[in-house]
Amino acid sequence: MKKKKKEVTIYDLARELKYSPSTISRALNNHKSISQKATREIQKAANNMGYRPNSIAASLRNNKSKTIGIMIARINRPFIASLISGVEEAARKAGHNVLISQSNDRYENEINNAKALYDSRICGLIVSLGMETKDTRHFQQFADQNIPIVFVDRVPDSFNSYRVIIDNYAAGYRATKHLIDQGCRRIAHFAGAQHLNVYNLRKKGYLDALRESKLEIDEDLIVDFNTMSSEEGEEATNRLLDMANPPDGLFSSNDTAAVSAILTAKKKGVKVPDEFAVIGFNDDPIASIVEPALSTVSHPAMKMGEISTQRILDHSSENLDTNISEITMLDTEIIVRNSSLKKTVQSSLLHTS
Amino acid sequence: MKKKKKEVTIYDLARELKYSPSTISRALNNHKSISQKATREIQKAANNMGYRPNSIAASLRNNKSKTIGIMIARINRPFIASLISGVEEAARKAGHNVLISQSNDRYENEINNAKALYDSRICGLIVSLGMETKDTRHFQQFADQNIPIVFVDRVPDSFNSYRVIIDNYAAGYRATKHLIDQGCRRIAHFAGAQHLNVYNLRKKGYLDALRESKLEIDEDLIVDFNTMSSEEGEEATNRLLDMANPPDGLFSSNDTAAVSAILTAKKKGVKVPDEFAVIGFNDDPIASIVEPALSTVSHPAMKMGEISTQRILDHSSENLDTNISEITMLDTEIIVRNSSLKKTVQSSLLHTS
Repeated sequence: MKKKKKEVTIYDLARELKYSPSTISRALNNHKSISQKATREIQKAANNMGYRPNSIAASLRNNKSKTIGIMIARINRPFIASLISGVEEAARKAGHNVLISQSNDRYENEINNAKALYDSRICGLIVSLGMETKDTRHFQQFADQNIPIVFVDRVPDSFNSYRVIIDNYAAGYRATKHLIDQGCRRIAHFAGAQHLNVYNLRKKGYLDALRESKLEIDEDLIVDFNTMSSEEGEEATNRLLDMANPPDGLFSSNDTAAVSAILTAKKKGVKVPDEFAVIGFNDDPIASIVEPALSTVSHPAMKMGEISTQRILDHSSENLDTNISEITMLDTEIIVRNSSLKKTVQSSLLHTS
Repeated sequence: MKKKKKEVTIYDLARELKYSPSTISRALNNHKSISQKATREIQKAANNMGYRPNSIAASLRNNKSKTIGIMIARINRPFIASLISGVEEAARKAGHNVLISQSNDRYENEINNAKALYDSRICGLIVSLGMETKDTRHFQQFADQNIPIVFVDRVPDSFNSYRVIIDNYAAGYRATKHLIDQGCRRIAHFAGAQHLNVYNLRKKGYLDALRESKLEIDEDLIVDFNTMSSEEGEEATNRLLDMANPPDGLFSSNDTAAVSAILTAKKKGVKVPDEFAVIGFNDDPIASIVEPALSTVSHPAMKMGEISTQRILDHSSENLDTNISEITMLDTEIIVRNSSLKKTVQSSLLHTS
């Protein structure tokens, strides 16, 4: 086995330059007690000898790094990828790095990821909760050390922290209202895990839009999903379209299942949008590729990421208390494409406000 | 500002239990010099008082964590997401965590990410290079500390390490041969950054397939791409199909640009596959959604991730030297869909071997 290349330490520098280790250390940290001449000499020699400050030891002393941690459920979601890009762009501008961990929607993984990031001594944490997460105690370790936490998109109800979300209720209401305006009378809903704010509020918006238009709420048309996968979408669509009185519209809480619904309907010979109008959620790239192209709700994902980073940077520079509760709510936009367009709509109706 | 909750230290335990700090420390580490009775008493009290071992300080002593670092160019690629899933699955089975960083194909970001992961004292690194990366000196810090590095998919030519790749040459050759077998005679190629092994070898395979079939190599049909985006795909397709003597086939080095080529051709009224047969690379989900569905080359991405993790685990458990060069090459599979299917093909031709 090859020996590790030995790292140059302040003791090596002390021996070489005939200063005490504490003088070397102070000079490397630009301490005022060391003369400018000695500081320059020591720093130059350190550089020449390949001395690298031990960043972790330094972090332990300062108790902060310049690394922001991200915990998300699944990286293979275009919305999440854009969110992360927003975080990274803002972080890099401020000279910070970003480390990412994904839980694959598993609670146990989320706990382990929290520990790995905590051990990395991150200076701030940005979290979008996994589908299984109902308990948030694994985030307390960060709050206890005054490491700011920003929950984004999928957020807990009851943890004091920053939260950056979209108006899911308004988006669900508008998406459903759009289908009603297009003439749909029996509108199905693909609902995600209801303990998560994002899916819960979209469903509330859907229900209120039906009520407002005095349309019947048929529980058989509301399908509870686990992961909102295309497999779940296919199965649910088959079941819905085989009903004696099938739905004439669908509001899906994500695009993956909505695209699956379009493909399944077409396979069954059901015409989209004439017999079955569909609107999704997220504006993933597949929404523009499927035929007919999928109407959907777009989030400002990049912006959500940028704002999340900004909260951490501001928190650190202003030395704020983590015992804070601040919510930032952003607007969404309804994007109308051919999957729901049964008649021409007024464009003024298409923006949530 | 709220005060940080003070962490319980071994000194607090020593004061409380009237043992020396070194006895406390040894008992917590199950040192044989401490009696079983005292060890039990101290561990129980530590637990009750909420003592947490400082993992980073512990890592500094042991100089290793149970965290594997991943450096990739872009997380929003289905191939990369599957690769990471493979890494994570194998890592979690072995009780390891995974931290991910993305460079967005920027060399400078890759250098900063390497530093952030190095500072996190990862026990192993899995890297797929960014588009801009031609110099690999930023990985030397890991090798110097005997931290194993596995390069995967986009790998350097000249760095001693583990490499896990697919047979890009054979895949490029087979994809092109498939178009020739379908009757294509003027086959265009979307080529990625040629200093990267993956794109360079796919192009070599393309050229050799043309040569073998005695087809003319027309440099005007070979388009060099930067990032293989859909925008680049659209622009290139417009230019190719506007030629006086346009191509009748296309082998694209990724699916993103290939799907863009299909959509652009359809918009121009060019029939796919009859007038313009297309095959991509990666088998992204969009390949099955576009119409006609895209023929493509699929990688064993999950498996590549699992093997990469295994190399790190084996390296660590066997105390191997990082000054090692070991290449694992995996097979790919040609997936024939309607975008290239002008006639029935023998299924025996469809697997690279």
